[in-house]
Amino acid sequence: MESKNIGPVELREAWWLLTPEDRIEGFQLLEPDDAEEFFFDLSADDQAELVLTLRPGARRLWLRLLPPDDAADLIQAADEEHREQLLRLLDENTRREVGALLAYEEDEAGGLMSSRFARARPDMRVDEAISYLRKQAIGTSELETIYYVYVLDAQQRLLGIASFRELFASPGERTMREVMSTDLVTAHEEMDQESLALLFAAHDLLAIPVVDDEGRMKGIVTVDDIVDVVQEEATEDIQKYGGMEALDEPYLRIGLFDLLRKRVGWLAILFVGELFTASALQEFQHQLNSLTVLALFLPLIISSGGNSGSQASTLVIRAMAVGEVRLRDWWRVARRELTSGLILGTILGLIGVGRVTLGHLIGLQPSEHLAKFSLTIAFSLTGVVLFGTIAGSMLPLLLRRIGLDPASASAPLVATMVDVTGIVIYMTAATLILF
Amino acid sequence: MESKNIGPVELREAWWLLTPEDRIEGFQLLEPDDAEEFFFDLSADDQAELVLTLRPGARRLWLRLLPPDDAADLIQAADEEHREQLLRLLDENTRREVGALLAYEEDEAGGLMSSRFARARPDMRVDEAISYLRKQAIGTSELETIYYVYVLDAQQRLLGIASFRELFASPGERTMREVMSTDLVTAHEEMDQESLALLFAAHDLLAIPVVDDEGRMKGIVTVDDIVDVVQEEATEDIQKYGGMEALDEPYLRIGLFDLLRKRVGWLAILFVGELFTASALQEFQHQLNSLTVLALFLPLIISSGGNSGSQASTLVIRAMAVGEVRLRDWWRVARRELTSGLILGTILGLIGVGRVTLGHLIGLQPSEHLAKFSLTIAFSLTGVVLFGTIAGSMLPLLLRRIGLDPASASAPLVATMVDVTGIVIYMTAATLILF
Repeated sequence: MESKNIGPVELREAWWLLTPEDRIEGFQLLEPDDAEEFFFDLSADDQAELVLTLRPGARRLWLRLLPPDDAADLIQAADEEHREQLLRLLDENTRREVGALLAYEEDEAGGLMSSRFARARPDMRVDEAISYLRKQAIGTSELETIYYVYVLDAQQRLLGIASFRELFASPGERTMREVMSTDLVTAHEEMDQESLALLFAAHDLLAIPVVDDEGRMKGIVTVDDIVDVVQEEATEDIQKYGGMEALDEPYLRIGLFDLLRKRVGWLAILFVGELFTASALQEFQHQLNSLTVLALFLPLIISSGGNSGSQASTLVIRAMAVGEVRLRDWWRVARRELTSGLILGTILGLIGVGRVTLGHLIGLQPSEHLAKFSLTIAFSLTGVVLFGTIAGSMLPLLLRRIGLDPASASAPLVATMVDVTGIVIYMTAATLILF
Repeated sequence: MESKNIGPVELREAWWLLTPEDRIEGFQLLEPDDAEEFFFDLSADDQAELVLTLRPGARRLWLRLLPPDDAADLIQAADEEHREQLLRLLDENTRREVGALLAYEEDEAGGLMSSRFARARPDMRVDEAISYLRKQAIGTSELETIYYVYVLDAQQRLLGIASFRELFASPGERTMREVMSTDLVTAHEEMDQESLALLFAAHDLLAIPVVDDEGRMKGIVTVDDIVDVVQEEATEDIQKYGGMEALDEPYLRIGLFDLLRKRVGWLAILFVGELFTASALQEFQHQLNSLTVLALFLPLIISSGGNSGSQASTLVIRAMAVGEVRLRDWWRVARRELTSGLILGTILGLIGVGRVTLGHLIGLQPSEHLAKFSLTIAFSLTGVVLFGTIAGSMLPLLLRRIGLDPASASAPLVATMVDVTGIVIYMTAATLILF
């Protein structure tokens, strides 16, 4: 850092490129207000790294600025050996709350929730509740949301909800029990974050209360945390779909070794699967030897199956991720893809025949077998595309059925499956028609 | 519908399967409260279909239940010829607001915003503002959010923001100017929804004010609408990445003809691209004729390039979509992928040599060329995988550079590019080493 004229914008721009030492130096050059905002906007990983680089006094100060759910995320992001030490920096109340949050998995409702929400008793009057809430808000700057008020009984069981707007619009002398809505959308504390995101999307809510087995309210999850969840889940799905493990870290930040580790596994599995193409072709070596023109069209035919399979698996994986397609819809999906595969295969078959005829007209392919060869190409393309769409659409459903992630039915995996089958279809058609 | 015992849950479950007539019948069997909630939870498309099936009196009733931004979405979702008629059903004020919203593109900030937000003047006292807001909330049940109050001057320019929590926690006699925060995150009315989603994710806000060129406040976008946007954008990206056009409709609902139309275009383009594999192979027909064992390993080698290219393009497309990688990072990406490609290619090359040696040991491949043949396979695999990772990672950046969507660098497109190049690499290596 040569210059002292660094603002939060410049620092954010340069962040990825800086070493931990440069980061801390840049951070300490910020105006206090800017620094605070900058710190809040960092990811939990970056916050943890930054806090651990600070000297102990400053470390405590910054950690205590965070609300409990964010503090829990930061501590979760730190290395195992630093967690205990970071926890001890918190005041006792917050430490208890953070400790409770850390007991949940990071990707379930309990791990995402905040335990600081606005509460009221059912027999409170609306105007009492409003001034009670005002006191809660003044007493603690940490109350996460006051756009919903949660009405709890003495056992902390959730009885009803009133939005702040409803409270404001209600006559002051009515009781909370009268104005609250009892038509509740709640999440169990162990609900996974993907289902939680679907719940938010289905109901357009700003916050969802989290309850335990007995219906006792444990906290709330707010929709702003869900935006991140939806992005993360989509990233994981897309990366799996591209034929690798989910990185769980930004692409430019993950270490090269970790990056390779996440990629090489699937690449090797696919490679071993693809080895079967050589074995399959070996079975038909006699045909290839006597009619080498067959080899020319081999990549074309098998890749057409891979492409149509890739389309079908994308459609089904994504439809399952957003809840549009469920296991029991498998027959409707199969019917659609059967029809689609036949039509798409026929179209590609026709283009293929056009190419063969053209090749014949300009004298590139042997002419003696033209009609039979065209028939082979057309039949193979239709068959391979049909097989691709069926395999691509059914594989994600099958994976879900046996408890695996549908997103693992990646484009490369489907392509590999179809390559081997495509060779068998093509060479069998050739054998039957041409020999 | 044989039974009268139908609740909102059953109706929602069955919805996809029902004809428009059955839907309306089921909907009209719901209790009034259930019907209202059910209606609000429907997508704009479903709402439009349902409203248009109702008789005119009911149609007006349901349309007027919606806040202006949702009404605008419904009208946008209806066929062109019904829009004017639906607009006329609204009361005059709402019609003006909806008309203004319809002037924006559906996927820009202006098209997502609500114009009903809580406002205050800078010289108001906090307690005045609170009771003023309470009147606004009672007066209209349509005020979208009161968790932020926007402080506007006489020209409607946005001066500052106070969260409701801050308002509540501030002494009543201070002015809005004193308590408001002037450190504003705003969105221009023409900002596209993808950038808007990144803005929400970066700042963890519940609502972002939308302003025009002069800084006048036009409305707010709330984070609950952004969850849907993030899901939709991810779906579009994933579908493009799978090698087709984005469907823009749920998979099970889109008509078969539309489904095929979105798929056949890319499939045909890829097929035509893949035709070059036949032409490339033709150039090497002599080598294939004299050493047919070369054909056996052809699918294996080109698909390995496709798989590694698919990984690389997935990583870069997603990193660009979430803002981690920008155009100017191209050299850092290229360096990473160069190293990754070399290492991954070498690993696959070693496995490939293992397979060739094994094939030789069990007598499946001709033995005379073993060393040279192994060298050809190893060299080709390394080269093809290296080319695949470079092409897959650079293509999305190149597409963005020339103004196209990076997500179009789909797995099948990268695979097709690599197939043609892979054949050239493989056959050239074979020619140089074996002949």
